[in-house]
Amino acid sequence: MTNKSYQLAVVGATGAVGQQMLKTLEERDFPISTLKLLSSKRSAGKTITFRGQPYTVEEATPASFEGIDIALFSAGGSVSKALIPEAVKRGVVCVDNTSAFRMDKDVPLVVPEVNEHDLQSHQGVIANPNCSTIQMVVALEPIRQAYGLNKVVVSTYQAVSGAGLDAVEEMEAQTKAVLAGEEASASVLPVSGDKNHYQIAFNAIPQIDLFQENGFTFEEMKMINETKKIMHLPSLEVAATCVRLPIETGHSESVYFETEKSGASAAEVKERLSNAPGVTLQDDPTNQVYPMVTTAVGKPDVFVGRIRKDLDRDNGFHAWIVSDNLLKGAAWNSVQIAESLIKLNLIKKQA
Amino acid sequence: MTNKSYQLAVVGATGAVGQQMLKTLEERDFPISTLKLLSSKRSAGKTITFRGQPYTVEEATPASFEGIDIALFSAGGSVSKALIPEAVKRGVVCVDNTSAFRMDKDVPLVVPEVNEHDLQSHQGVIANPNCSTIQMVVALEPIRQAYGLNKVVVSTYQAVSGAGLDAVEEMEAQTKAVLAGEEASASVLPVSGDKNHYQIAFNAIPQIDLFQENGFTFEEMKMINETKKIMHLPSLEVAATCVRLPIETGHSESVYFETEKSGASAAEVKERLSNAPGVTLQDDPTNQVYPMVTTAVGKPDVFVGRIRKDLDRDNGFHAWIVSDNLLKGAAWNSVQIAESLIKLNLIKKQA
Repeated sequence: MTNKSYQLAVVGATGAVGQQMLKTLEERDFPISTLKLLSSKRSAGKTITFRGQPYTVEEATPASFEGIDIALFSAGGSVSKALIPEAVKRGVVCVDNTSAFRMDKDVPLVVPEVNEHDLQSHQGVIANPNCSTIQMVVALEPIRQAYGLNKVVVSTYQAVSGAGLDAVEEMEAQTKAVLAGEEASASVLPVSGDKNHYQIAFNAIPQIDLFQENGFTFEEMKMINETKKIMHLPSLEVAATCVRLPIETGHSESVYFETEKSGASAAEVKERLSNAPGVTLQDDPTNQVYPMVTTAVGKPDVFVGRIRKDLDRDNGFHAWIVSDNLLKGAAWNSVQIAESLIKLNLIKKQA
Repeated sequence: MTNKSYQLAVVGATGAVGQQMLKTLEERDFPISTLKLLSSKRSAGKTITFRGQPYTVEEATPASFEGIDIALFSAGGSVSKALIPEAVKRGVVCVDNTSAFRMDKDVPLVVPEVNEHDLQSHQGVIANPNCSTIQMVVALEPIRQAYGLNKVVVSTYQAVSGAGLDAVEEMEAQTKAVLAGEEASASVLPVSGDKNHYQIAFNAIPQIDLFQENGFTFEEMKMINETKKIMHLPSLEVAATCVRLPIETGHSESVYFETEKSGASAAEVKERLSNAPGVTLQDDPTNQVYPMVTTAVGKPDVFVGRIRKDLDRDNGFHAWIVSDNLLKGAAWNSVQIAESLIKLNLIKKQA
């Protein structure tokens, strides 16, 4: 794609998403001349191996970004808010996996299969959408192109790794406790910063992120607002119910949608999806072929199946969408944005 | 409620639902003069304690029903199909927890909070609806009464105990295997009689029961057809996506519904639900109060929360509905039907 190579920083290198970013950069053979691994003070000093070489993780400070071409941020919203303006000042193009800048009108919010063209107007920051939004828009964009889109109602089935490694450890410890007939203690989920914590093992918690005044959670509002922005459909009707489940990695979504044009068949919708970028259609009920996290995790694609026409509305459809929340939902989409920026010649090399 | 007492048979006494039926009959102090515990040949001979007395489980045959007033069936559709006509011939009123007779036009399909009056026309058989249907209609009926109901889109989060004790054991064994880094073997879920079996531990399987030709599963079609029948709304738009999850007991449902009348507020809907029979409203987002299986299991009620108005449609609402699938979803609803039959004087005592 290019014969240039880039000075890259990964901020949040020790986290669940940061680790997947490094794995993805290795697998994609991303053109890196210098790699800097950054983190909070707490994780600084750890050693991480990349392409067979040991790297010492450094504390991220404004000066860390001197000479960097591209930085991938995944260390929480407050780190992004503090350091991205500093990095941009130093000429770095930042791909941010947090929600800090997603709804800023000057910041493109990009899923390359849907709106790669929005990268053209970037001013140093590109936001990576919320994991549950990404997999949904990849599946809905080919539908929008063919039939238009009026309404989306989504119920999610989200994995604990979306809440970080602490949440994964909590789920495992609780699961062992419950199986041993012991009390399961909770201090992370549903939201580490909220007042109460509940057992996720063998449970379903209808809260991801904090509640807003309208009764929706921030996770639900992210899905609603980000979908409209990415798809350039400000008047699209979107509603979401986001639920945390005892699954380590891999988000699933039950989606009902209504198209603008009526009359498409389920077979036609499947045909569109089977040819769509980033989508793998898994839809053969007779042979029990449908997406599941156990088969989707570790793969970059969005898996779509159980497509069926609504029994009442001629423009209504139901679908089941599964993807690896740490890959397409985070690390892979961020790396893919960086690759698109390079392909479109939108990164000024600093040195 | 009455000073009569009845000769009662429980068919499928050793199963997951049968055990809950016995527990419920004890707790309700159900007026039993004679109790007969029946099962398949395989389980006959086992001993079960009821009200401190040991009972030997007998193989269910047509002759078992001589002299019985009421029989609660929960031993699978084929047992119900074979034995219910024999029991009815012998004057027994049968409450059937299987899907064998649910859609027969001569068989009332009853959730007492919704359509107790349908019991009046029974001809010896009353069907107990599907677990996931029951909890949904208990929550939707007060809405229908106040505002009418046009459309329902439900995505379920269903526990493995709905597939029987074998499924619960399979989930536990798989969970231990996965935590130990071993291969998880599957031979029961998603559907014991289907071709392929998949791991449920740390997974979400979008299949409950077999697939029909239209791409919906039988479980989804049960929710669709039974909801219309119970609520006496043949033209209600209903769609369902049913998903099995690694939860032992307790079904959750994310429900989007549209009312006939527009303009109700979420607060008004909550008010209606807080006064509805069989419903416990748990809806206080500020204090993270919402229904969860960990708090609902073991209780007879249907728990409803996360009520919010759709952001786009003035007649649209979202809700989260949780109940114990073995209690209100099965055992408790069956016992409740038997209690209603007694209350309405619809059981002829045989002896």
